[in-house]
Amino acid sequence: MSGSVIESIYNERQSRLATVMEKAGFEAVAINAGPTLFYLTGLHFHLSERPVVGIFTPQGPVTMVLPELESGKLAGLPYPVLSFPYGDDPAGWESAFREAAATARISGARLGVEPRRLRVLEMRFLESAAPGAEFLSAESLIAALRMHKDTREIAAMRQAVAIAERSLKDTLPLIRSGMSERELARKITTQLLRHGCDPELPFQPIVASGSNSANPHSSPSDRLIAEGDLLILDWGANHGGYFSDLTRTFMIGRVDPELKKIAGVVSQANEAARAAVRPGVAASTVDRAARQVIEEAGYGEYFIHRTGHGLGLEVHEEPYIYAGNPMTLEPGMTFTIEPGIYLPGRGGVRVEDNVVVTDEGAETLSTLDRTLFAI
Amino acid sequence: MSGSVIESIYNERQSRLATVMEKAGFEAVAINAGPTLFYLTGLHFHLSERPVVGIFTPQGPVTMVLPELESGKLAGLPYPVLSFPYGDDPAGWESAFREAAATARISGARLGVEPRRLRVLEMRFLESAAPGAEFLSAESLIAALRMHKDTREIAAMRQAVAIAERSLKDTLPLIRSGMSERELARKITTQLLRHGCDPELPFQPIVASGSNSANPHSSPSDRLIAEGDLLILDWGANHGGYFSDLTRTFMIGRVDPELKKIAGVVSQANEAARAAVRPGVAASTVDRAARQVIEEAGYGEYFIHRTGHGLGLEVHEEPYIYAGNPMTLEPGMTFTIEPGIYLPGRGGVRVEDNVVVTDEGAETLSTLDRTLFAI
Repeated sequence: MSGSVIESIYNERQSRLATVMEKAGFEAVAINAGPTLFYLTGLHFHLSERPVVGIFTPQGPVTMVLPELESGKLAGLPYPVLSFPYGDDPAGWESAFREAAATARISGARLGVEPRRLRVLEMRFLESAAPGAEFLSAESLIAALRMHKDTREIAAMRQAVAIAERSLKDTLPLIRSGMSERELARKITTQLLRHGCDPELPFQPIVASGSNSANPHSSPSDRLIAEGDLLILDWGANHGGYFSDLTRTFMIGRVDPELKKIAGVVSQANEAARAAVRPGVAASTVDRAARQVIEEAGYGEYFIHRTGHGLGLEVHEEPYIYAGNPMTLEPGMTFTIEPGIYLPGRGGVRVEDNVVVTDEGAETLSTLDRTLFAI
Repeated sequence: MSGSVIESIYNERQSRLATVMEKAGFEAVAINAGPTLFYLTGLHFHLSERPVVGIFTPQGPVTMVLPELESGKLAGLPYPVLSFPYGDDPAGWESAFREAAATARISGARLGVEPRRLRVLEMRFLESAAPGAEFLSAESLIAALRMHKDTREIAAMRQAVAIAERSLKDTLPLIRSGMSERELARKITTQLLRHGCDPELPFQPIVASGSNSANPHSSPSDRLIAEGDLLILDWGANHGGYFSDLTRTFMIGRVDPELKKIAGVVSQANEAARAAVRPGVAASTVDRAARQVIEEAGYGEYFIHRTGHGLGLEVHEEPYIYAGNPMTLEPGMTFTIEPGIYLPGRGGVRVEDNVVVTDEGAETLSTLDRTLFAI
């Protein structure tokens, strides 16, 4: 087996999983297509009607159930894999699962799964293949591994931020009133790709103008951007599977003075939250720092979401930065800081950055100006 | 309540669901974020760490559990909805589910779910909120509704095909040897967006050149497209949530005569399969038609996947066109026809079209030439 750096990453991650799995009393962990499987194996599978499951045990090789069509991906892997491929006819899938379960000896096992990822589809196959297995959440155990990003992972995120920032700079001259939200969403997407974003975007950019900007999860619509609007642009890039996720707010021509005022408050809240990030601090403390600035300005009831979410191989992952979260921040954790104020029917402001917890404090990966951008 | 066409679609779909649900003996159906929820309600939610579930019963209103942040989407709907929103702290989610389950009276119910969509996350919340409920697959029942596309849905798919075809025409002059697969994937994506594809692509385009083209599920890599390569391009557009999914194969300069020969065979197989599509025919018959052409040419063992898959709000949905599928084709069904031949280490060819079953036969929505494109 070769000793290349890339190869050793997956061996090392699998062995770390083995350690925490034993400590937590799991006899195996079953992971379906998605970011954790990629993290542990380097293998990228889309979630589809064809189940893909990797079974990890403390000792044995990785046991994979997957479509024959995809089994080429297993060639030349640096770690041992036993594969159980199946054909197009779903009638044959059960036996692939049965053989895999017998090989990995998971009947009656305490089996760790990811409830946010595993579907009833895979669970039913596993249940019938491994009678008596107990399906337990291994989410916190896996999050604990994935949350601690190494230098290589942080470098990928830094690159994803740089791509997103360059894309915004080239989109700025294209924004004008009279353009639809949908059109602007296409333009920023095109710039993301032009600047080297991987073809699979982390998420569809949010473009929310005027009263739509008061809805934090608005989808780009046919609404035309108009003078006097606030405009929220929430976009990100994918670099080697690692994501950035940024938001800036723009004013189109002259806007209502109160809307300008809330922009200043949000910018201060963003600053305060980022300043609060350091090892040993609770996620809730970071949320509080942002919320306090907004509450003191009298807009507490209009900050209607958490301050941030973890970011990495998923656009939302642990740690979540919300009021009730006692989780202690540790070096290597990466997340968004994105306070906002949303005045129903009038407009909203959000300013979102990506930070990484360092040994001493935090580094903000994003560098764009945080005041209202004037168009 | 207004009588607009758009509004009536969802009322009508919900009432069709109510009918089939009662017939199948389900007391309720629970659907999480995704295409079926969109189909039934017109509401678009992303699958995330925050569960969104709509509970449908034969009589009552739609019962929705969702994040507060998203509850603005429920304003002004043309059908009755009872919503149970929850906040950022997961500690409060269980009670939202409990109240929703009590309102929809699903304790002990025979509850239809979609195993391909519902995650352990939502299932655990539903299990604890509705003690004694039996979770049963409602997949075939829902597929039976969604498979029969109406005129409006087919028009959206026709538009998605037109966007994809125009995008290819503008990409053709950009393809050249020395360009990486990844670069070409970006170029076709950019053209898709320029031609009006919704910002959320149905899937990441596949660009597979040279020996990579022999792997039907290859991801775009840094490999440089070279003289003598076959090049498979598999791309599609999204128009209003409805997808197209096309594939064409290209030869870069002069290619090995056998590779040219298999391109002719695949083109004939595609033709034969499309000619076999009509109401009353089994999906397996269509698969056979393609497979027979390829087998007779001596390449049967190199056609390593099914002939096609349903297409609509998902890139893979029912009906699946494979050897073992007895499902009878009916008017309004839409699917791909995409035979291929893959010679390991040398190259592959796939030609993929999108068809709709009509009252008398079938219509192919895609019009691009089906021979090898010379670059």
